[in-house]
Amino acid sequence: MQKQVSIGLLGFGVVGSGVVKMIENHREELSQKLGCDVTVKHILVRDKEKQRDLPLHSPKLTTDPAEVLNDPDIDIIVEVMGGIEEARKHIRHALQNKKHVVTANKDLIALHGQELLEVASENHCDLFYEASVGGGIPVLRGLTDGLISDRIQEVMGIVNGTTNYILTKMDEDHVSFDKALGDAQNLGFAEADPTADIEGLDAARKMAILSRLAFSMNVELDDVETSGITDIALKDLEYGNQLGYVMKLIGFAKKENGSIEISVQPTFFDKKHPLAGVKNEYNAVYIKGEAVGETMFYGPGAGSMPTATAVVSDIMAVVKNMLLGITGKSNLIAGLDKEITPDERRFAKFYVRLHVKDKAGVFASISQLFHDKEISFERIIQRPASKNQLAEVILVTHQTSLANFQTTLEQLQEMESLESIQSYYRVEGVEKND
Amino acid sequence: MQKQVSIGLLGFGVVGSGVVKMIENHREELSQKLGCDVTVKHILVRDKEKQRDLPLHSPKLTTDPAEVLNDPDIDIIVEVMGGIEEARKHIRHALQNKKHVVTANKDLIALHGQELLEVASENHCDLFYEASVGGGIPVLRGLTDGLISDRIQEVMGIVNGTTNYILTKMDEDHVSFDKALGDAQNLGFAEADPTADIEGLDAARKMAILSRLAFSMNVELDDVETSGITDIALKDLEYGNQLGYVMKLIGFAKKENGSIEISVQPTFFDKKHPLAGVKNEYNAVYIKGEAVGETMFYGPGAGSMPTATAVVSDIMAVVKNMLLGITGKSNLIAGLDKEITPDERRFAKFYVRLHVKDKAGVFASISQLFHDKEISFERIIQRPASKNQLAEVILVTHQTSLANFQTTLEQLQEMESLESIQSYYRVEGVEKND
Repeated sequence: MQKQVSIGLLGFGVVGSGVVKMIENHREELSQKLGCDVTVKHILVRDKEKQRDLPLHSPKLTTDPAEVLNDPDIDIIVEVMGGIEEARKHIRHALQNKKHVVTANKDLIALHGQELLEVASENHCDLFYEASVGGGIPVLRGLTDGLISDRIQEVMGIVNGTTNYILTKMDEDHVSFDKALGDAQNLGFAEADPTADIEGLDAARKMAILSRLAFSMNVELDDVETSGITDIALKDLEYGNQLGYVMKLIGFAKKENGSIEISVQPTFFDKKHPLAGVKNEYNAVYIKGEAVGETMFYGPGAGSMPTATAVVSDIMAVVKNMLLGITGKSNLIAGLDKEITPDERRFAKFYVRLHVKDKAGVFASISQLFHDKEISFERIIQRPASKNQLAEVILVTHQTSLANFQTTLEQLQEMESLESIQSYYRVEGVEKND
Repeated sequence: MQKQVSIGLLGFGVVGSGVVKMIENHREELSQKLGCDVTVKHILVRDKEKQRDLPLHSPKLTTDPAEVLNDPDIDIIVEVMGGIEEARKHIRHALQNKKHVVTANKDLIALHGQELLEVASENHCDLFYEASVGGGIPVLRGLTDGLISDRIQEVMGIVNGTTNYILTKMDEDHVSFDKALGDAQNLGFAEADPTADIEGLDAARKMAILSRLAFSMNVELDDVETSGITDIALKDLEYGNQLGYVMKLIGFAKKENGSIEISVQPTFFDKKHPLAGVKNEYNAVYIKGEAVGETMFYGPGAGSMPTATAVVSDIMAVVKNMLLGITGKSNLIAGLDKEITPDERRFAKFYVRLHVKDKAGVFASISQLFHDKEISFERIIQRPASKNQLAEVILVTHQTSLANFQTTLEQLQEMESLESIQSYYRVEGVEKND
């Protein structure tokens, strides 16, 4: 039996150094748990001359990917360099060289996961990516192993820490989106260019990965309807608060009658729902299974050491499979035909905020329109708006289809008494866990 | 490769029928995921004549355990009969017959887990028990696989649904313990004899199992300091509410400097802590790891189908190991020397409610006593008590050792100005996730 497993690391940034540190600090425990030593032998870096904390046994640094990928001693390639095309090329190369791969790269797995898993299986290699969703939270393993016997019906996730931090600050400190974003940037919770986070794209990538595993369909990024949090007004958070809701950027994935709907959008959650209590930069994934009911996995969604934990857990899973001679058999390749639920069959409750002309009969005519569309109201708030002669109306509907709701909004736009539709959001979690 | 795996079921109650139903309903998916068929072949029942819903292929019913345990076709014994001595005997018998075992029996695993795991490993058999803690929540697998690379420092669990339901009702509906217990019994959330739940014993068993896995020490039931919820007064919940706390029956396990402390006790939690939001009959286990930081696993802690999910996941793990020829290698037998943290090194904040004589200088003398013991206060509330000439004083201390706190309470008892110590509770979760 092999007594030594060697790692080649692609990238030596925040996560890469966490992985090296963790393997070094836990050398003895790892060796005891696995019955063999794990060593980082070769590291691909951008600049060899940069000052770094290196472990005692001094792994070799190189700027040439081929040196790592072709090193015959390397058993496992750990990709933590980020980016897409180069990482994809290196991982294919590694797998073709019969090296197992562990990656934390959600962008890559969201776009090319299915293709890379197929290459891995053809080469009898493992390809694991637990760190790509939810940082240190073992949620992919929860889905694939823990809930393996169940049929997953719904996955809802707060899977982007930056936007959750911003929304928490807006809600608790009553500051604008711009102010909250600035604070998040100062604290290192948001990047200098925050586009991918605040527009919902990062969350969409993670939802593609999660729903592929949950539903065994080859979900692509384009299948995820995505909107971000840049337009959220403090006023809506305040009305939400009055209604007992809190705003979260939610990745929503649901399978019903064999077809799936996946979206990322700002959503009002009932305060009693477990996801409503997930604050600041924390992440959580809420899973509904036919048999198990409702479960939730909570934890830090990012950070050097949490992410490194997930990478090292993957490394340990590969090492176990190597020792058992069963590598390449755990790659879950989505196998079912994909069908996307049309808007006519996507049902939800909605919150709508309208500005209407403040005169007799206006509310009656709006009510009539919703009534004609068979949409009834669960809650209504009416207030004088800040501008003269306008009233602000907040409606929370009962369940209706997205298609019906959108047609209703279009017809509403044409009504003479309507000044503007200020905002509308999906409402979730109302009946659950209460 | 084996194309058929046969299950022998010991017990056909709520969980047993859930398991049979789940295997029947998911026959095709299981076969697809595993590459082999799984069938329940033989069931030990108490009464063969009782009317039951049986699956189409009609498993054989028997009242003789030996018929199931000695059936040469059976690969896996699933023990869902409950109880201790008989179940233990049957499981030993099964393992010695080289049959793998899956059990949902927390009482048995808490008492004899280590012994049975050793028998399993000697016989190259798997012994899994995911369903014994947290029902359908895959928390044991989260600990053993997901967080395998981390050093676990702390495990805090709401691991008993009955008591959590009662405390939620007391808190939200302002009803007494007796009323809440009665309601729970009527709704089926509490048993006719609720002693094991409300005295904390059920939670203690689960904490023994969890901390054994988290810390790799052979934790026994006697190592868990246990107190229940029968004495909790509504008044304390109300003061807690004012202070921003909510009361939970918490299983607390912590490892520091190589020694462990484990307890089950009613504890005040800051409302912002994720465990504070776990309501009604739900369970959650909060895990703090050196690298991963704080994670939480949430879900239904009991129920036929959730528990069956965990049992079937275990069955699938066994089948995979069988197909791979690696059974008996995943049994985690606690191997480190056990050291229990003495009260001098158990640190916490405490809430104390006192009745004192309402006259000048009393509060000064109480303060002096705490000051002499180097215990400072974080919060103080003073009120006239309902009885004449008494004042009610609520103190929340900063961190102090349990030993020091207890000596202080003893000296307090002797003070002339003290009428009585009404209650005291540990306070947790104050600085976290804020």
